[in-house]
Amino acid sequence: MATYPQAVERLIAAFGRLPGVGRKTAERYALHLLRGPSRQARELAAALGAVSLVTTCSTCRNLTESDPCPICADPHRDPSTICVVETPADLSAMESAGTYRGRYHVLAGGLDPLEGVGPEETKVAELAARVAGGGVREVIVATSPTVEGEATADMVARALSRHGVPVTRLGYGVPVGADLKYMDELTLSRSLESRRKME
Amino acid sequence: MATYPQAVERLIAAFGRLPGVGRKTAERYALHLLRGPSRQARELAAALGAVSLVTTCSTCRNLTESDPCPICADPHRDPSTICVVETPADLSAMESAGTYRGRYHVLAGGLDPLEGVGPEETKVAELAARVAGGGVREVIVATSPTVEGEATADMVARALSRHGVPVTRLGYGVPVGADLKYMDELTLSRSLESRRKME
Repeated sequence: MATYPQAVERLIAAFGRLPGVGRKTAERYALHLLRGPSRQARELAAALGAVSLVTTCSTCRNLTESDPCPICADPHRDPSTICVVETPADLSAMESAGTYRGRYHVLAGGLDPLEGVGPEETKVAELAARVAGGGVREVIVATSPTVEGEATADMVARALSRHGVPVTRLGYGVPVGADLKYMDELTLSRSLESRRKME
Repeated sequence: MATYPQAVERLIAAFGRLPGVGRKTAERYALHLLRGPSRQARELAAALGAVSLVTTCSTCRNLTESDPCPICADPHRDPSTICVVETPADLSAMESAGTYRGRYHVLAGGLDPLEGVGPEETKVAELAARVAGGGVREVIVATSPTVEGEATADMVARALSRHGVPVTRLGYGVPVGADLKYMDELTLSRSLESRRKME
């Protein structure tokens, strides 16, 4: 297989360690960068270097370049509501919805016993400490409606139970724009449970 | 959408310029590198830096760190047979088959009029010059059996016609292990054309 120069093989191997990238895709990325202007490879290398300055917010554990992060530092965002998400990507998705005006807490990877991720690996103790600090009136658990997400939501609810703060969960149901006849049974039963009175 | 720190957005943008990588995949790559050990991001950056030393062989146009490339410099490989491939990836695929013992010529991107790639963009003139130099007894055109590949093969055959060197083409047909009933009509008719006498 060693038909590429060593430096190219090394780049292919490095790309191959990205999630979901196999040998063929890694080859495609490497050869694309070799065929294109060298500026593109340099820019990617520089971006990788710059990213080492990114840290996690000591309050909410989101990715940030400044501590506290812009959301935690924003006086216009309600500090009494904490939305608990599993990853920075979930936080990004919530933010792009543009309606939530409270703060966040990133667990950074949900509970996944098969992958060896237990409660001690997630930042739930930090969340409990934040809530214990006072001033929090609601914790919204925004985990994905998957087995892992459900387990994580239960864990968060248990960890916060003795603090007397209401813990709510995102409403799960039929997504906007979806066709009812193509929805799976579990989503339909969830949407039935979370039905609301029409106004 | 700007909910990631600027350095993370920059990395996402850089990944997003790779072929077939959209916003979500680029986010996944960037966040994977941020979650994992920083060694991984550094290794990718270093591999990108090292790849700038890779050049193309002045004889066959394959990617190489030394000129001539190891294949052109190998005295055990038959210099009288040239296998013409479109890209270094195609050369790599041919080499991994392990049966070809001649030399190569990489056109570096086939003919694709829709993408503005004409004969002058490919290295077919260099191939013709190589053949004109003498000592070549066969040119095997190993382009993909696609519209672009066919056009490239025709172009190569035309460019070499006045040199009086036999130009052959890879046999196209049913791939080994494939189920005949799932083969498309064109592949079947090709395999019929390239039928061989059983021994």
